[in-house]
Amino acid sequence: MSLIVQKYGGTSVANVERIKAVARKVYQRKREGHDIVVVLSARAGETDRLISLAHEVSPNPDPRELDMLLSTGEQVTIALFCMAMKDLGQKAISLTGYQAGIMTDDHYGEARITSINTAIIKEYLKDGYVVAVAGFQGYDPHHNITTLGRGGSDTTAVALAAALRADICEIYTDVEGVFTTDPNICSNARKLSKISYEEMLEMASLGAKVLHARAVEFGMKFNIPILVCSSFKDVPGTLVTGEDQDMEKYVVSGVTYTKNVGRITVTDVPDVPGMAARIFGPVGEAGINVDMIIQGSSGIPGKANISFTVSKSNYEKAMELVREIARDIGAGEVHGNDRIAKVSIVGVGMKSHSGVAGKMFSALAAENINIMMISTSEIKISVVIDEKYTELAVRVLHDTFELDKDPNGVFRVKEEPFE
Amino acid sequence: MSLIVQKYGGTSVANVERIKAVARKVYQRKREGHDIVVVLSARAGETDRLISLAHEVSPNPDPRELDMLLSTGEQVTIALFCMAMKDLGQKAISLTGYQAGIMTDDHYGEARITSINTAIIKEYLKDGYVVAVAGFQGYDPHHNITTLGRGGSDTTAVALAAALRADICEIYTDVEGVFTTDPNICSNARKLSKISYEEMLEMASLGAKVLHARAVEFGMKFNIPILVCSSFKDVPGTLVTGEDQDMEKYVVSGVTYTKNVGRITVTDVPDVPGMAARIFGPVGEAGINVDMIIQGSSGIPGKANISFTVSKSNYEKAMELVREIARDIGAGEVHGNDRIAKVSIVGVGMKSHSGVAGKMFSALAAENINIMMISTSEIKISVVIDEKYTELAVRVLHDTFELDKDPNGVFRVKEEPFE
Repeated sequence: MSLIVQKYGGTSVANVERIKAVARKVYQRKREGHDIVVVLSARAGETDRLISLAHEVSPNPDPRELDMLLSTGEQVTIALFCMAMKDLGQKAISLTGYQAGIMTDDHYGEARITSINTAIIKEYLKDGYVVAVAGFQGYDPHHNITTLGRGGSDTTAVALAAALRADICEIYTDVEGVFTTDPNICSNARKLSKISYEEMLEMASLGAKVLHARAVEFGMKFNIPILVCSSFKDVPGTLVTGEDQDMEKYVVSGVTYTKNVGRITVTDVPDVPGMAARIFGPVGEAGINVDMIIQGSSGIPGKANISFTVSKSNYEKAMELVREIARDIGAGEVHGNDRIAKVSIVGVGMKSHSGVAGKMFSALAAENINIMMISTSEIKISVVIDEKYTELAVRVLHDTFELDKDPNGVFRVKEEPFE
Repeated sequence: MSLIVQKYGGTSVANVERIKAVARKVYQRKREGHDIVVVLSARAGETDRLISLAHEVSPNPDPRELDMLLSTGEQVTIALFCMAMKDLGQKAISLTGYQAGIMTDDHYGEARITSINTAIIKEYLKDGYVVAVAGFQGYDPHHNITTLGRGGSDTTAVALAAALRADICEIYTDVEGVFTTDPNICSNARKLSKISYEEMLEMASLGAKVLHARAVEFGMKFNIPILVCSSFKDVPGTLVTGEDQDMEKYVVSGVTYTKNVGRITVTDVPDVPGMAARIFGPVGEAGINVDMIIQGSSGIPGKANISFTVSKSNYEKAMELVREIARDIGAGEVHGNDRIAKVSIVGVGMKSHSGVAGKMFSALAAENINIMMISTSEIKISVVIDEKYTELAVRVLHDTFELDKDPNGVFRVKEEPFE
């Protein structure tokens, strides 16, 4: 007998028929003798409906009240789901984030789970209940309702699995698993049977929407296997788990992209200590996350050019702020570009293989795609390019690293020095 | 400076524009220097929408899960309202039933408030907030969400006013106040400027839908003046308050009716001790409320006929149950009639005036309306009649007691013995 946490996303519970179908699936698993906790999202479209309702009231809805509003979406789903379970003859109980003991900090709209009191859930499991928990929500130390941000139900599920020491966390969604890249762009994208937490984390952060990055972090930290699979088709999914011997053969596991990027450049910044802090201090305080930062020499001695990227939603705000800062610190001009994209390759195999970066840059150069910025980590290489080349770059990289091929070591990078 | 609890019903917050209008009204009152707690209902139609969603899932939705579902309706309203308040520049905070400390028993769907912990509300009021509380909901000792039944937001408002020792509880609704009878039936129905708790309680119980009976009970118990007034028109409403000298002049204050009644008669019940208990024990255990009960002699010595009324929604269930019971106890036949109505006159003045009943019965007899059952209390007389005479009876009684006239003692009953 296992303890299983399952999460069903918005499309899986979009309407009454689908909610009943999920109930039947859960019922089958329960009858196999497992203890089951089900985390549910709001019905597809419901969160958007509530957000537009809020915007009808206010151009800039209060964040606490927005969370109060949005948290109703999941509450509706868990109630309907438990009604369906009980009609199948299975005891079931729904719990809001508060009732399930999911405590968060007080960052409305993007709260982080700080602790989970599992006592109530464990008691109901012991009594034979299927426990349905509202995803995406928690409560802060002052008992205010908080939400975890888009995709937060994934995080709820994996965090619950960790807190309950579940055997597995199953994420049921509208895709069949994790693919080597976006199948909409690259027709020969291949479904991975396994991927490491680190790779999945990079892919989630870099724009692959299949799993929320925070969820992967929880999985990694507490070593909870996460199975991503289809809610509609009975086909094998992708297991996100710790690194093993198989995985190292991949070298590159996936190509990701995001168009949600803007780049800002400040020219002729006086090259004295503390300048970076004077730029990025206020930007951070304004709640703007900076992704890549590059500092290069300007044409003028004693001056430097600084470029960085922000998400497109923060682009205008950041431009405005940085123009002020540039004046204050006696820098030159501020340029911006929000028609750019970030394309990345990810793979734990990179740790032990050099030459991957060179191969990537050559492949892009061969297509005359100019690289504006580069950033790397142990297991990923990201480049910023003109937005219009996004799809081309993804396909070229997918082909270059032969991601359509079976992973059993067909592809080998040449042992060239890392450049 | 006063502490005011205001309640706005579903039609008053039916859409975004109306929610904003309520926010402006509250803002004005707050600027006059008062402390304000606002209790809000679900938007008109929302509770029905959620109920039909539940019925799409299950023919007989689990009561706990139904409360989990329905409670989202008010949560949406309070969140939207507080967004609107903040856009007016007024601090406001929304609280669910749980957050507002409203504890109830665990009778899902018709829970009763058992205590209110006002600490959090008081703290926010002290800090200058307008506090918006979700009506109709609370939580039981195990932290399950409960609802108080239809019209329960009235109860939330008056109970909060009592717990907070508010100066007044204002109920904003889609009617202008309490009328001497239903203006849809009787064109010369008159709005009362004042009515006693006792009268209002009888009228609420007897079918006048303007105020929830439980709410009036709370008002009476804790002596909280309740002002019922229009959410849309700026006209004087009706003050529900303790008895005073003015009121005694009314004798009869109102005529109420309900068609939501069924009558069941068991013939030839053995006239031995314990028979009533053997009938009404199981009926009560089945959750069926019995209203009037009349026991009379049957034609056969040692046997009695017992008649009683139940609400129409319980009629079929009660008939079935009583047929079984009748067999068990060796009674005769079971007859039923669900095409009946109850018409009542209410007035604290009856306490000190006799002859009211006689006048009522004569007026009905003059119209050839047959009286099937009678029940009386100190301040009301109810009769059960054929449903088709309902409107006629209401108009006749309204005329007989001259309820269209100014209350200053125009009408005097003759000092006849009470029959």
